[in-house]
Amino acid sequence: MAERAKVLKFDAFCWEGVGRAAYKRFAAHHRGVSRQTLLGEGEGEAALSFVTRYFEIQPGGYSTLERHGHPHAVVVLRGRGEVALGGTTHQIAAHDCVYVAPETAHQFRATGGEPLGFLCMVDRVRDRPRPV
Amino acid sequence: MAERAKVLKFDAFCWEGVGRAAYKRFAAHHRGVSRQTLLGEGEGEAALSFVTRYFEIQPGGYSTLERHGHPHAVVVLRGRGEVALGGTTHQIAAHDCVYVAPETAHQFRATGGEPLGFLCMVDRVRDRPRPV
Repeated sequence: MAERAKVLKFDAFCWEGVGRAAYKRFAAHHRGVSRQTLLGEGEGEAALSFVTRYFEIQPGGYSTLERHGHPHAVVVLRGRGEVALGGTTHQIAAHDCVYVAPETAHQFRATGGEPLGFLCMVDRVRDRPRPV
Repeated sequence: MAERAKVLKFDAFCWEGVGRAAYKRFAAHHRGVSRQTLLGEGEGEAALSFVTRYFEIQPGGYSTLERHGHPHAVVVLRGRGEVALGGTTHQIAAHDCVYVAPETAHQFRATGGEPLGFLCMVDRVRDRPRPV
């Protein structure tokens, strides 16, 4: 399919035509995490070499503590939480940015009363995460 | 410098340690646009093959109508506006996503009472925009 410019309309942290998926197919020390792939894997988007995903962690939930060779660029969209980066824990809130450097062990937690939602951009071609 | 994981704290649509730059050095049919490069060009971020920028357009302002070979992945963070994509104009608001496919003529306009702010992710290595 030819590349096609488009707009994905937002409504209550869902996007038109975008499905909400489980974070991972198999449980690996995570809780309450969902994933929506916004841009980079859809039809007509092959020109994008990176993928823009939206992750949401329910209050009290957390992502897998893991590392991998590819970096992450993260921008928080809603809620409050913390991110562990190589042994240091940082408080994060809406619009804070996080750079997860290669091979840095990292984990996100939602610590507020509402979900912690963040964009996470990664290379389309990347290595698999390894639980720590 | 070694790759270094980090958090950039947000405060009123500025980020810690990130300068606000003019959109372009030379005027080219744009008005009221500023740019902040959040992730992908800083020290210790060389592993990122793409750059996350934040653009803000003041009420009534607009970006250059232009095209280029690289695609854009855009996520609106604040305000209201419209984006022209290859001859079609779409209304956009906070958290809407826009995919600007290669060689699509595009232009953003702030149409509300507050600035239109959006993230725009691009490949680090990319061709120059050409005004339309």
